[in-house]
Amino acid sequence: MPDTALASCSLTPGASELHALFAPRSVALVGATDREGSVGRALLENLCGFGGELYPVNARRSEVLGRRAWTSLTAVGRPVDLAVIATPAATLPEVIRECAACGVKGVVIISAGFKETGPGGVELERRVLAEARKAGVRLVGPNCLGLMSPHAGLNATFATAMARPGRVAFLSQSGALCTAILDWSFRQQVGFSAFVSVGSMLDVGWGDLLHHFGEDPDTGSIVLYMESVGDAAAFMEAARIVAAKKPVIAIKVGRTAAAARAAASHTGAMTGSDDVLDAAFERAGVLRVDTIEELFDMAEVLAKQSLPQGPALAVVTNAGGPGALATDALVRAGGVMAGLSVPTLERLDQCLPAHWSHGNPVDVLGDADAGRFTEALRAVAADPGVHGLLTVLTPQAMTHPLPVAQALIDVAQTTDKPVLASWMGGDAVEEARTLLNKAGLPTYDYPDEAARAWQFMWQRQERLRLLAETNRVACLERPTMSVAREIITGHRAAGRGLLNEAEAKQVLAAAGIPVLETVSARTPDEAVQAAERLGFPVVLKLQSRVIIHKTDVGGVQLDLKDEGSVRAAWSRVENAVPADAFDGVGVQRMVKDGGLELICGCVQDAQFGPVLMFGAGGVMVEVLQDRVLLLPPLSPMLAMDRVRRTRIHHALQGTRHLAAVDMDALTDVLVRLGDLVLAVPEILELDINPLVATAAGVLALDARIVIRA
Amino acid sequence: MPDTALASCSLTPGASELHALFAPRSVALVGATDREGSVGRALLENLCGFGGELYPVNARRSEVLGRRAWTSLTAVGRPVDLAVIATPAATLPEVIRECAACGVKGVVIISAGFKETGPGGVELERRVLAEARKAGVRLVGPNCLGLMSPHAGLNATFATAMARPGRVAFLSQSGALCTAILDWSFRQQVGFSAFVSVGSMLDVGWGDLLHHFGEDPDTGSIVLYMESVGDAAAFMEAARIVAAKKPVIAIKVGRTAAAARAAASHTGAMTGSDDVLDAAFERAGVLRVDTIEELFDMAEVLAKQSLPQGPALAVVTNAGGPGALATDALVRAGGVMAGLSVPTLERLDQCLPAHWSHGNPVDVLGDADAGRFTEALRAVAADPGVHGLLTVLTPQAMTHPLPVAQALIDVAQTTDKPVLASWMGGDAVEEARTLLNKAGLPTYDYPDEAARAWQFMWQRQERLRLLAETNRVACLERPTMSVAREIITGHRAAGRGLLNEAEAKQVLAAAGIPVLETVSARTPDEAVQAAERLGFPVVLKLQSRVIIHKTDVGGVQLDLKDEGSVRAAWSRVENAVPADAFDGVGVQRMVKDGGLELICGCVQDAQFGPVLMFGAGGVMVEVLQDRVLLLPPLSPMLAMDRVRRTRIHHALQGTRHLAAVDMDALTDVLVRLGDLVLAVPEILELDINPLVATAAGVLALDARIVIRA
Repeated sequence: MPDTALASCSLTPGASELHALFAPRSVALVGATDREGSVGRALLENLCGFGGELYPVNARRSEVLGRRAWTSLTAVGRPVDLAVIATPAATLPEVIRECAACGVKGVVIISAGFKETGPGGVELERRVLAEARKAGVRLVGPNCLGLMSPHAGLNATFATAMARPGRVAFLSQSGALCTAILDWSFRQQVGFSAFVSVGSMLDVGWGDLLHHFGEDPDTGSIVLYMESVGDAAAFMEAARIVAAKKPVIAIKVGRTAAAARAAASHTGAMTGSDDVLDAAFERAGVLRVDTIEELFDMAEVLAKQSLPQGPALAVVTNAGGPGALATDALVRAGGVMAGLSVPTLERLDQCLPAHWSHGNPVDVLGDADAGRFTEALRAVAADPGVHGLLTVLTPQAMTHPLPVAQALIDVAQTTDKPVLASWMGGDAVEEARTLLNKAGLPTYDYPDEAARAWQFMWQRQERLRLLAETNRVACLERPTMSVAREIITGHRAAGRGLLNEAEAKQVLAAAGIPVLETVSARTPDEAVQAAERLGFPVVLKLQSRVIIHKTDVGGVQLDLKDEGSVRAAWSRVENAVPADAFDGVGVQRMVKDGGLELICGCVQDAQFGPVLMFGAGGVMVEVLQDRVLLLPPLSPMLAMDRVRRTRIHHALQGTRHLAAVDMDALTDVLVRLGDLVLAVPEILELDINPLVATAAGVLALDARIVIRA
Repeated sequence: MPDTALASCSLTPGASELHALFAPRSVALVGATDREGSVGRALLENLCGFGGELYPVNARRSEVLGRRAWTSLTAVGRPVDLAVIATPAATLPEVIRECAACGVKGVVIISAGFKETGPGGVELERRVLAEARKAGVRLVGPNCLGLMSPHAGLNATFATAMARPGRVAFLSQSGALCTAILDWSFRQQVGFSAFVSVGSMLDVGWGDLLHHFGEDPDTGSIVLYMESVGDAAAFMEAARIVAAKKPVIAIKVGRTAAAARAAASHTGAMTGSDDVLDAAFERAGVLRVDTIEELFDMAEVLAKQSLPQGPALAVVTNAGGPGALATDALVRAGGVMAGLSVPTLERLDQCLPAHWSHGNPVDVLGDADAGRFTEALRAVAADPGVHGLLTVLTPQAMTHPLPVAQALIDVAQTTDKPVLASWMGGDAVEEARTLLNKAGLPTYDYPDEAARAWQFMWQRQERLRLLAETNRVACLERPTMSVAREIITGHRAAGRGLLNEAEAKQVLAAAGIPVLETVSARTPDEAVQAAERLGFPVVLKLQSRVIIHKTDVGGVQLDLKDEGSVRAAWSRVENAVPADAFDGVGVQRMVKDGGLELICGCVQDAQFGPVLMFGAGGVMVEVLQDRVLLLPPLSPMLAMDRVRRTRIHHALQGTRHLAAVDMDALTDVLVRLGDLVLAVPEILELDINPLVATAAGVLALDARIVIRA
């Protein structure tokens, strides 16, 4: 289970195990050849640019591409840090054994022909991994394009060019996408600290790579193209630790069922529910984007700019329309336009023409020169209610794009607040854009793009706060839930799978969750006894292992005010169903209407383990689908952050019909539910429906639990 | 009211009144000057490129910029079709009078200094408009950049360059945005049939311009940057007629309240509710986009490509990851991935390597050459379940981008289905992209962009179907609702503003809407009589002009089974409130629970007139905000299209607890409500809450109406 073991809480991992892969002193290429058009030749040509030792290995040649070649790794006779392997899949177990014998520390397996070919390939993979594990050799691949380490001058791929050095580590599960991104990156002048095609992640996976680049001083941000999560626990642990230090931005294909099928069909990867993945990314502080364009936009801006200390953006513009565009985009992305203080407004009144916009966006008007821009920018940047600045320029008749850009750069140097720029247009603003970029100010073609980038920056800041809490909570010792565990163990011993309402509520009560007590009664006398203890009026509910929808068969009898009514109700329930479907009744207090009906529960996700669900309850629950997922362990703050994403959240704060509900009690239930399912993983499914919330607290009115047989 | 008059149903307007503005034979520039940096000089320089007659007018000069000048329009002494005016605002009434006297047909007023300066400017505008209307002169502006008609070689703006000729008409309410878009368009090689800065739309507005460019053979699509709608009825009528012929794409700023304030502060324009505008755009067939980038992407693709005959897209790709990206983007945008037929799958099995993806996206694998692409594309294009093709290429080791592009062009010529392309990367694919563009195939940097563009194309096709229905319905004669009108007239005569439940239901019943009858009773005897007529059990409800929340004060008495209970309930209600708050009771049949609680109603929008609302009802209505707006007049098909956008719509189709409801009855209520509020515009607000829907029909359980005093 992710996040549960204390061992996984280390925030300072040691020197990276992957050092040999990305900063080797010596590299061997197994499968080097000069055959035209071959992968082995493309690899050799690329590796020739490497500054350290290079050992081409070819069983039948003493020279390849005019370089000396060795007939085997053993024949090299000198230390090899990294081996890049392009020989057929069947040779791999033997090659890895030889690598281990020669002290190779890292291996990149370019070769394909493993699990994607069927059971034989799966067995081959198993043998390769066993050899590597035995010797502590780390493997990238198989079935990949390879990797590049531009700062080390290492191009261990068969791509057609070397990436530019930069501060983005790009990790991709699609080799083809690597080649397209690489080609695109030259034109966009995007540079990389590493460029890794991860292949089928037989050994080195997302977790290892995140840890490595989290520690790598050359890496400012980490960008992932994911098709499958692989080892979810390792990913989650690495992500939450690394994302607290540098931005981790991911695009994960398979958002939709159809896309998931598309991805699965070509990687053989299993893809879990996308909603769970969203929740997991949020928890781990990974920013998820939807387009390749956003992926790199965000990587750039987050690596470049300091983060805002608050959400409020001010826009200074020489045209009203673009200012309104920026405002629209910001507010639609959930952002906040800064309100300007009275002193700021007064200062602007002094430096701007009378018909300036008198608010944010600050329209300095079409004839603004650099001086007027400067004064407005200074005034706005000084406002404590402004957390960042977007400056928009449209090239009008009186506009001088270059001096205004210089003015913005000067103002940016006097403030800690992030500064973004949108110089709109083409050639008329090109020189100014270049100047802004050189000064480290992110520029955008359109102000709406800039506003969305700002909102990403603020989300990143907010995530850091939640991430600190997540990492704190992950290190706490969690309750053992020994009483609940004992009850479950007892039911398992009795061969039970589905617990009835009374049994489920015992488990919840043991976990400290407020329940409306249900007493099982096997006879009318027991029912009357229970009613007298609980207090009239009561409700009788059919208990049955075969009938699920109790109400439909008349199995629920409401508002029973005395002993006589209870006995009469017993008979009605007993007579309503076949004798072998009748396992007695549950007796509980009659609760009058009132309070908000909520639903919460838990399922076991194949990848991420226990996942909680919270949302609106009632008969419309299936239609409204107003729910969020939560990954335990939780704290009240983490629970609250997720609850806030539901629509029903507005009702929790009070409506015309209802007082605001007790949020502490509600988040406490979610925290305890999380602790329960972490401590007792034998709980496969758990539903509380409804959980009724009022100003006085919350109460589980009905519940069911399914346990592992 | 929009859409109501039969006169507005003409689908074939005559020759455009605006011809003189966009295709003049002669142009006069009033305010021509050679003063460095002036607007008058910039205009003159731009107009010098015009091929027809040009008459610079300057009261004090006989020559400007080396050209002969005239001291007045009158002095020109020859016919002038178009006058462009850059003299101070105060001169305008006199200048327009002179234009009229000289037979000028169109005027562009560049000058500012009108309503944006206050009451004096408003008065000035009034006088200018009066002069123009008297003589039938049409005005663009004031306070604008001017207009360009590239095919006519006319640049009547003070921008720094002339737009490239093309098929997009760009109409912008922001002059500054015009200059930025113009500058950008050169780099992007976007061409225009017209480029219009509309200014404050004193005379020529959206409606006139839409009609004009709807008829203009040089215009393939119309793109609007809107800050305010202006004359909503004229806009709506023009848009629904023109959008049925060519794409109308709009970006409207002020989506959010904050943005609306920003726009209002600099144009003085009033902006209505954005939800109403969304509904209006949908009804008029206007595609609304959110970013400038989409605005032109859509204009290009819709002007270039035929529209798809169905929603299903097939993706042919040489890499799985980009295929999954396209699938994600399509499905998230609400689109559909084509299912391939068995014959197509068999054909692909024959022409592709064994481990192709065996489904859509069709992954032809990384080593695919042009021949393999061609065979796959032909097979997929021939599948009747495929309505369009997206081909994705990533430049891998064995990939030849250019021959594959040629292969796609060849296949595109053999099919009517739209074909899109995404050649990913930079320089490696540039030549191929150019080839595709030249062949008229839209290309996209990323496959997700292409998938979104496809979805826009399909939406456009769907809109056309609805638009045909909208235009059909707009031409039908609507019911006069004479009985309902009479009732309302009576209440108005009696000085009533808020109708009580019984009165509101009479109006609804007169409109043919099924209501649960409520009988007003002024005495206990009347209440008993009513109960006996309606049938027991009944409900008594307080009638009061001062107490709104009847339930809270005990003003609702349920399930009264006989005369005695009715009399007792009367007393309870009467005693529950002060005597002067008691106006008797309403008596109605007791309806047992069951059915879905819906809400519908009507408000008068300041811009668009009557707007209907439909959504989920019940106590959570305010929280869930599950509602849509509908602009009348409606038909069942138009109503259904909007109802389908609610979440509650899923419940209408049946749930575990409820049978599917009678949709014909539901849409009938919406159609009739629309007819009612169109025929009786004195109805300011109308609510039916709840409208209960079951398999047997719908029933208005409660209602209220507010009428104009």
